Amino acid sequence: MKPDHAPLAQGELAARYPAIRAATEELAGGLSPEDCALQSMPDASPVKWHLAHTTWFFETFVLERHDAAHRPFDPAFRFLFNSYYNGVGEQYPRPQRGMLSRPGLDEVLRYRVQVDERMRALLAGRTLPTEALGLVELGLHHEQQHQELILTDAKHLLSLNPLAPAWRAGMPKRAAAAALLWIAHPGGEAGIGHDGAGFAFDNELPRHRVLLEPFELASRPASNAEFLAFIEDGGYRRPELWLSEGWTHAQAQHWEAPLYWRRREGAWMEFTLQGLQPLDLHASVTHVSHFEADAFARWSGARLPTEFELEVAGGAFADVWQWTSSSYGPYPGYRSTPGAVGEYNGKFMSNQYVLRGGSLDTPPGHLRPSYRNFFPSSARWQFSGVRLARDPS
Amino acid sequence: MKPDHAPLAQGELAARYPAIRAATEELAGGLSPEDCALQSMPDASPVKWHLAHTTWFFETFVLERHDAAHRPFDPAFRFLFNSYYNGVGEQYPRPQRGMLSRPGLDEVLRYRVQVDERMRALLAGRTLPTEALGLVELGLHHEQQHQELILTDAKHLLSLNPLAPAWRAGMPKRAAAAALLWIAHPGGEAGIGHDGAGFAFDNELPRHRVLLEPFELASRPASNAEFLAFIEDGGYRRPELWLSEGWTHAQAQHWEAPLYWRRREGAWMEFTLQGLQPLDLHASVTHVSHFEADAFARWSGARLPTEFELEVAGGAFADVWQWTSSSYGPYPGYRSTPGAVGEYNGKFMSNQYVLRGGSLDTPPGHLRPSYRNFFPSSARWQFSGVRLARDPS
Amino acid sequence: MKPDHAPLAQGELAARYPAIRAATEELAGGLSPEDCALQSMPDASPVKWHLAHTTWFFETFVLERHDAAHRPFDPAFRFLFNSYYNGVGEQYPRPQRGMLSRPGLDEVLRYRVQVDERMRALLAGRTLPTEALGLVELGLHHEQQHQELILTDAKHLLSLNPLAPAWRAGMPKRAAAAALLWIAHPGGEAGIGHDGAGFAFDNELPRHRVLLEPFELASRPASNAEFLAFIEDGGYRRPELWLSEGWTHAQAQHWEAPLYWRRREGAWMEFTLQGLQPLDLHASVTHVSHFEADAFARWSGARLPTEFELEVAGGAFADVWQWTSSSYGPYPGYRSTPGAVGEYNGKFMSNQYVLRGGSLDTPPGHLRPSYRNFFPSSARWQFSGVRLARDPS
Amino acid sequence: MKPDHAPLAQGELAARYPAIRAATEELAGGLSPEDCALQSMPDASPVKWHLAHTTWFFETFVLERHDAAHRPFDPAFRFLFNSYYNGVGEQYPRPQRGMLSRPGLDEVLRYRVQVDERMRALLAGRTLPTEALGLVELGLHHEQQHQELILTDAKHLLSLNPLAPAWRAGMPKRAAAAALLWIAHPGGEAGIGHDGAGFAFDNELPRHRVLLEPFELASRPASNAEFLAFIEDGGYRRPELWLSEGWTHAQAQHWEAPLYWRRREGAWMEFTLQGLQPLDLHASVTHVSHFEADAFARWSGARLPTEFELEVAGGAFADVWQWTSSSYGPYPGYRSTPGAVGEYNGKFMSNQYVLRGGSLDTPPGHLRPSYRNFFPSSARWQFSGVRLARDPS
Repeated sequence: MKPDHAPLAQGELAARYPAIRAATEELAGGLSPEDCALQSMPDASPVKWHLAHTTWFFETFVLERHDAAHRPFDPAFRFLFNSYYNGVGEQYPRPQRGMLSRPGLDEVLRYRVQVDERMRALLAGRTLPTEALGLVELGLHHEQQHQELILTDAKHLLSLNPLAPAWRAGMPKRAAAAALLWIAHPGGEAGIGHDGAGFAFDNELPRHRVLLEPFELASRPASNAEFLAFIEDGGYRRPELWLSEGWTHAQAQHWEAPLYWRRREGAWMEFTLQGLQPLDLHASVTHVSHFEADAFARWSGARLPTEFELEVAGGAFADVWQWTSSSYGPYPGYRSTPGAVGEYNGKFMSNQYVLRGGSLDTPPGHLRPSYRNFFPSSARWQFSGVRLARDPS
Repeated sequence: MKPDHAPLAQGELAARYPAIRAATEELAGGLSPEDCALQSMPDASPVKWHLAHTTWFFETFVLERHDAAHRPFDPAFRFLFNSYYNGVGEQYPRPQRGMLSRPGLDEVLRYRVQVDERMRALLAGRTLPTEALGLVELGLHHEQQHQELILTDAKHLLSLNPLAPAWRAGMPKRAAAAALLWIAHPGGEAGIGHDGAGFAFDNELPRHRVLLEPFELASRPASNAEFLAFIEDGGYRRPELWLSEGWTHAQAQHWEAPLYWRRREGAWMEFTLQGLQPLDLHASVTHVSHFEADAFARWSGARLPTEFELEVAGGAFADVWQWTSSSYGPYPGYRSTPGAVGEYNGKFMSNQYVLRGGSLDTPPGHLRPSYRNFFPSSARWQFSGVRLARDPS
Repeated sequence: MKPDHAPLAQGELAARYPAIRAATEELAGGLSPEDCALQSMPDASPVKWHLAHTTWFFETFVLERHDAAHRPFDPAFRFLFNSYYNGVGEQYPRPQRGMLSRPGLDEVLRYRVQVDERMRALLAGRTLPTEALGLVELGLHHEQQHQELILTDAKHLLSLNPLAPAWRAGMPKRAAAAALLWIAHPGGEAGIGHDGAGFAFDNELPRHRVLLEPFELASRPASNAEFLAFIEDGGYRRPELWLSEGWTHAQAQHWEAPLYWRRREGAWMEFTLQGLQPLDLHASVTHVSHFEADAFARWSGARLPTEFELEVAGGAFADVWQWTSSSYGPYPGYRSTPGAVGEYNGKFMSNQYVLRGGSLDTPPGHLRPSYRNFFPSSARWQFSGVRLARDPS
Repeated sequence: MKPDHAPLAQGELAARYPAIRAATEELAGGLSPEDCALQSMPDASPVKWHLAHTTWFFETFVLERHDAAHRPFDPAFRFLFNSYYNGVGEQYPRPQRGMLSRPGLDEVLRYRVQVDERMRALLAGRTLPTEALGLVELGLHHEQQHQELILTDAKHLLSLNPLAPAWRAGMPKRAAAAALLWIAHPGGEAGIGHDGAGFAFDNELPRHRVLLEPFELASRPASNAEFLAFIEDGGYRRPELWLSEGWTHAQAQHWEAPLYWRRREGAWMEFTLQGLQPLDLHASVTHVSHFEADAFARWSGARLPTEFELEVAGGAFADVWQWTSSSYGPYPGYRSTPGAVGEYNGKFMSNQYVLRGGSLDTPPGHLRPSYRNFFPSSARWQFSGVRLARDPS
């Protein structure tokens, strides 16, 4: 959260709060108690945990501090649903989140109802201090981030099921992808980072200037058809196309295609939220790691863009998150938000790469041009794709 | 299953079938969908899996072969719920059983209903061949084995939960343990194995003769009080009391007490199906590995009995399974049951140790004096305890 | 060591000591300092370590107790070269033995010279107590065991080298294997274990009686040709032939043939101490695990013999160690040798299987009919083969 | 290597070659064959391997291409001593380098002699093409990099030995560290990267301009005394000082001090090339990971410098390598050297951080202001320390 940010007005927050919270529950609506309880890998969390943790965020950072009548729903939740805030205390270990059959989904939903009722009363009551309003606003952005994680984590779980279950109704097949154009940018000095108005995370600040060389950027993310050409040209078997660490990882994990592609009787299928479907060649390729994005770019005679190039060129808001060549680090003069919420972003600035843009499943209104998403190089379960860049010839 | 065994009459099986199947469902009755879906470790299975697998057994080995009108409930179940029968085909990997949110508990219960209805019809209908009756009888014994596993597996899952949830209502505290007496046995030639009448597993056969030295056997399993004395005498810190492999394992796993003992503010508690309870000093010690049982016996100036000593001395049917010093192997002339069900016992005769007796949670009527249970030396999540033996002085 | 054994006379030990010690050094003579320093896996030890540890045995158990003028060669060696005797103190971790570039081979050889000189003086001097003589005798048998381990461990190291180096000069190719005959044994009561005269390890005692069923034993170990037929019949791809644990292990380790067999351009070769050689079809198959021996026996319509059957039938002394179906455990009434040397055998009686017989590389004079060798089921780097047994039809 | 670089003249290379090669052998001179053969961890290589690999570099990239009479010393070496050049062919696996007892140190030294003789003749003969001269020059810089690695790798091996052996004679104790001053820099536009004259690696190019904010840089690296204050203030026990990944790693590895610090009876010692020595409080702290450097900087109220800040401020050439906050990546317009040597740098631009400066053990004449060293965040076995930077208040 921007340290000196003027948050939204209390009335506006009171209006947004129930809408954003309801969107989370609607998202999880098609899932069974079992779907919500299982953890498919240490990187992913059970949906039930997301439902509880986002609630914990409001209970711990807002109600506990600003609601004099606050009583914890269950004192054990402070420990169970703390993700990584050492400032709040010990945390239940992340890889064990799938060991918690209790509290059940029913009780977690009751937890949400109680906290929402207290939050409603708080926001409808006396004027809250600015710090409290800032935390409410942060909590809503936090909730939206977990909405996308609910989708990616549940998708990963269902993908492991040999029954290849569908979660939600089908979506129309994509129209033919537009021709890929190269858009030239002259480079030069440019401003980077959030520019003042409205909410931003602390990692988008301070706004500062950088020098860019001239570059060219693809007009859209790469498509499945384009990525398939890379595969068919032996892309996964040619070490010269890969970073050394990427090659080692791809060999060890037996990568041969994006995460959810499956070959069935000679044809490529893709596991989707609608179950196993024929691969849509016109759609943007997604569920590729930074390593795969980088190898694909090298094979294409191009490279990944820096996060600055994507920010400056604008128009990053396509249908998949776009890996950049930028390691996730602090901007010059970066300061984390004071207090435990300061652990939100800064302590992860290590061995991760920035993704820019957003996906079809990022909640509407959540994004800004300066928005920085970040994941390790090997991560594939997010909606991550690739937009190419290149140096002018 | 005994190769040349005359199974129970069809009418008797028709009567027993619904009672035993209902007992399984009653056992799982206090558990939520989430409790039934999670897998706490590769050795344990989700309760839902037990409910489905025992049903799969009847569907695969009985209905598929002897019910001409049989249609599979779901063809994928043949793969999903096959435990380890290579003769039936590929198996869904055991360590991944906790990744299956679908089919949900509801659907698994419908699976049970449909198979039970077909089985009821089959058993009420035309006279079945002896082989079919034998498989039904085997399936019922198999079901009873899984009843105890449902308890041990769900207990293990709940034990990992920091909330220490209780599953079922309390049981009366045990009366003071009887004084431990040593019962002398003269040794000599003795008959071992099942002796003809009634059902037995193939591993209890052939009945044969062994030569025993004179020995003395404790009159009851060791109590928690007795095991506590071992701990307080430094039992877990003295390598000279342990097998080399046991010591290495205990150090690596940081064992300091039986699996479910917890020290809370200086007092010993035990996690039980009634939640966390003060340690009952009069109860038999349980949830100890073969390694711990062996070290405790050495510290006691005694040893573990052989499985033959326990069988010959009779009276093994106490309240906990009793580790023996006998490696689980074939009796002279052993032959496994023909066909896929022959994989039931024989292929596990490797690096496991025999337990004799039975536990408070073994279903009534399931046991025989020749019954052989078996687990690896490091297993602690079963109801396993220790009865001491010694050589006459 | 037999607890109440009358050891060899002091003069006899004085004569044997230098001969057996020299044999060890001769064995290692063809190896470079580097050959002697490396550790190829945690199960194996560097040759340098064997040279030092066997010396440590005499220094620690004999000189330290019975040579009043004894000063340690290097006090750190007490820790560095203690294998597993908790009674002597802490041990340098086994998997780290290959991290010790110092002391170098030169210094270890100086260590041997000094201890040998002190031992020579001790044995040539005043009459030693029986306990000391017993420890010298034990130390010589211990040294002989390590002579065979030097061969198996160095062979394993060299086998990992892509250069496939030869260690020693060639041996004549084996003559055609004799036809395999089945020798019938009537069973009945039989005496097992060492019978009084001469040295024996404590695990060969007490002598006791067992009851055997009638059985038939192959006249010689299985040959490479016979094992090749198993491979060519899909032996490594048919789970029904394997113990469950063996199958899992073989799949995980990608076993397709005995440890040192290599397929080169369609022909089978074997890595030997003479380098890579064409497979000798007439030689006994060796470097197979207990799992492979068991699967081969099942495929052959036979089984592994028990250790009692091999002992009773005599004639076990062939050219390879022979896996038995007997888990390594204590004989009835077993007691380990008092003191730290009591850790020699007893604490390993867990999850290992007995091998009987001996190999071409077992030192002459080291063996007895009651001799029990033992290794885990998965071990393949010893000279381990298989002799078949079967029940009379 | 700079793609369009004019290499040194042939005569100059002919003069430098024997001097640099001899320096390598002198460095290894105090080590035994065993010291040179062992591998202490996958990140480190045996000294013998370094001796052979640097020779392989000249044989493969120079002699094989430019010496018409070239015959390989041993064809197997092409595979054994290829580090990571896929363009040259398969590589012997890095973690197995310590499994090669053959070729021995003697043979590797003979390999060096033969290649050196051929190289001498080549350089003394006909005029070589520019590409060949460039490869010779690259090979000499490569050799110098391995000289420092020989020291760090052998030091790591010796540090694991409980005997704490000394390798070389003592060095004088450091004089008191100078007072730490903060040197202000105004920021602004600055040129980064190699600027034309003389050799540079491809990762130092192209020279380009960056925009810097004003910053302050410490006048020298942090001392052991300053790092000790961090430890005594609980630095290793306070998660708020650490990056999340660093904290997890430090906990898992039980880090409590720099790699070679040892606490002995309450006093801090340090394992050095002179054996275990009292900690020199005046020396620069070294053998710290990027994670520890970052935590120390945060505790100091400062931060790590970027690699640009260190390059611009000059004077980076202190006695330890200095971790920067800059992820190792390509400069704008970066192109790797064509051919297999292009694998030298570019493929490692992933999840590593840049170190600038150099250490007391970097060979004289090897460094430039634009020189970029790089290691993963967790690496501690290099001579890596920390120089602080901060934003002006």
